[in-house]
Order: sequence, then C-alpha cells, then structure tokens
Amino acid sequence: MTKDLALSKVYQLLEAGPVVLLTTARKGRANVMTQSWHMMVEFEPPLIACVVSNRNYSFAALRATKECVIAIPAVELAPKVVGVGNCSGRTVDKFERFGLTPVPAERVAPPLVAECFANLECKVADTRFVNNYNIFVLEVLKAWTDPAQKNPKTIHHHGYGRFAVDGKMIKLKSRMR
Amino acid sequence: MTKDLALSKVYQLLEAGPVVLLTTARKGRANVMTQSWHMMVEFEPPLIACVVSNRNYSFAALRATKECVIAIPAVELAPKVVGVGNCSGRTVDKFERFGLTPVPAERVAPPLVAECFANLECKVADTRFVNNYNIFVLEVLKAWTDPAQKNPKTIHHHGYGRFAVDGKMIKLKSRMR
Repeated sequence: MTKDLALSKVYQLLEAGPVVLLTTARKGRANVMTQSWHMMVEFEPPLIACVVSNRNYSFAALRATKECVIAIPAVELAPKVVGVGNCSGRTVDKFERFGLTPVPAERVAPPLVAECFANLECKVADTRFVNNYNIFVLEVLKAWTDPAQKNPKTIHHHGYGRFAVDGKMIKLKSRMR
Repeated sequence: MTKDLALSKVYQLLEAGPVVLLTTARKGRANVMTQSWHMMVEFEPPLIACVVSNRNYSFAALRATKECVIAIPAVELAPKVVGVGNCSGRTVDKFERFGLTPVPAERVAPPLVAECFANLECKVADTRFVNNYNIFVLEVLKAWTDPAQKNPKTIHHHGYGRFAVDGKMIKLKSRMR
C-alpha cells in the first residue's frame, strides 16, 4: 500500500490545505481525529504546525507521547472523515467503528491509516506554543504514499460540513518552490 | 466592492488552504506577496498563524509595522498571483506591474486588494515565534467580502506552479464547526 515519499516533497501534500486525519497512541490504544488547522513551516526537514485543541481527546496523548501520524484522505473517505470528527475517542474505538485499518508505522507508535493516500510519521519538535495556542510543531520523520491511489482529490473544509473537493489541476510558470 | 463579514466566519475562508496575497505598507509604500503557509488558530476573535520568510521583502515591513492584509484571490487571478510570487517588492511596484488595485483599509495601513473576493485586515498579535520559525500570529480586526464574486474558486498550491482549483462543493452532516 505504501511507497516512500521524499521528505522534500511533503509540503506539496499539506500546503494545499486538505482535511487530514491525525492518529495517536497511548497505553496500547490508538485513536484518530479529524483535523484541518495545519500549515507547513519548513520544507526540509519538513516542519508542520498544527492546532490540536485541549478539548480534543487526542490532545493529552499527543502532548504526552510526542508522536502522531498525519494521514491524508481522498474524497471517497469523506463520510468516514466526518464521522471520525463527530465522535470522541473517549468513548469510541474509531478505527473499528469506521472500518479504518491501522497499520504499524516505521518510526512512531501511532498507526498509519491504510485507506489514506498519504501518511506522515511525525514527532513533536516544539511544545512551547501549546499552552497559549494549542499549536504543536511537528517534524515529519517518514512519509508514505499509496501508488494505487492515482490523482487523489482532497477535501477542504469551509465550515459546518461544507467541503470543497479538488477540481482541475492547473500549471503556471512559477519560480516558487 | 466589499461587504462586512462576521469575524466568526473568517475561518471558513482560510481553513481550506487557499493561496493568498499578503499586503504590507511601510514608509508610505505598499507591497504585496504571495503566501500559502497559513492556518487558523482560533475561531473568534480569529487568530491566524502564518509563515513569512525572512528572505521575503515583506518580512521587515510586517515585523516593524505589525500590520498586514490577507487578500484571497479566486482562480481568475491565478496568473497575477504567480506573477506576484515571482518577483520582489525590493525592485518592483507589484500593484502597478500586475494591475492590482490597492484600496484603503479601515483598521490598518496596508491596503486591501480590490480584485480579491475577500480581504482580512490583520494586526500582528504575537511575535514570539518569529525568530525560530518566521511564524507570525495575526488577529483579524476586520473582514470584507465582495458580494459581486459569486462562488469564488480558490487555488491550492501543490508545488512548482501546480495548483488544484476548487471543484464541486459537498455537504455532509457534521458536528464540526
């Protein structure tokens, strides 16, 4: 299911603002949440800032274990992605409820999500912004893509369950990396 | 051209990860850059984190004046957006070169961009992450939309001038704000 992705290309996945899944693991139990407040901070090694609210069950696991996986779903998974966001790991095994397949990661304890077209294994690199803003700075240690998912279309949240789905791709002559 | 937008709805514009323009003004001179490393941090008052590299000409203006406007372009502006990203305000008046119209803002010195469908007037709320990560935390003071631009489609950068354009909008039953 997975193919190595160069760390130098990670930003091309996240810069576009897709809704993602974020997995954590604590005391032998994996959890997954829906997340869309993230941004690239550095190209390589890829640094990502993301907001995980202290109201989310995943917050404590992320802060304690300092590890997570960011898994990027294509539009076909949208109903499951919303389902994951509508309940809490406090009371639900979300992998089981939504038929998502956890796959062992290589560098971190939280699992990859097999159904996602890309998975980023991350460690927390900086927690100084957690207390004020719930911002975690993550470093991507390892990145995977699923070559069987060709041209995956991501979803972009516009609030209250409205999502823009990727449409056509355009190419312009840019000096921007 | 502009209509008030409730600050509580600002996140619906940025959470989806569009490429944006960022204007600054210093010593009576306005400048504009292309930007796509940003994320929402809080709903209301809307807080945004964004990365402005210290290699960008806008960096010094943003740090010194602590004000900017985030202007969100629809796909029709994509060639100009890329053009803005391909040159520097050090040597070019980018508003003039690309035929972008600066419009006075209400709360800050940097101008709105008339051609954009949304404009967010921002002040820098926190600079503690600038030295390590070039991350500015912005507070949106005032938000505008252009009611004449119906269903604007934003662009999402995938690296090296490849942009995904918004396609269809889907609606799912979500408890997520």
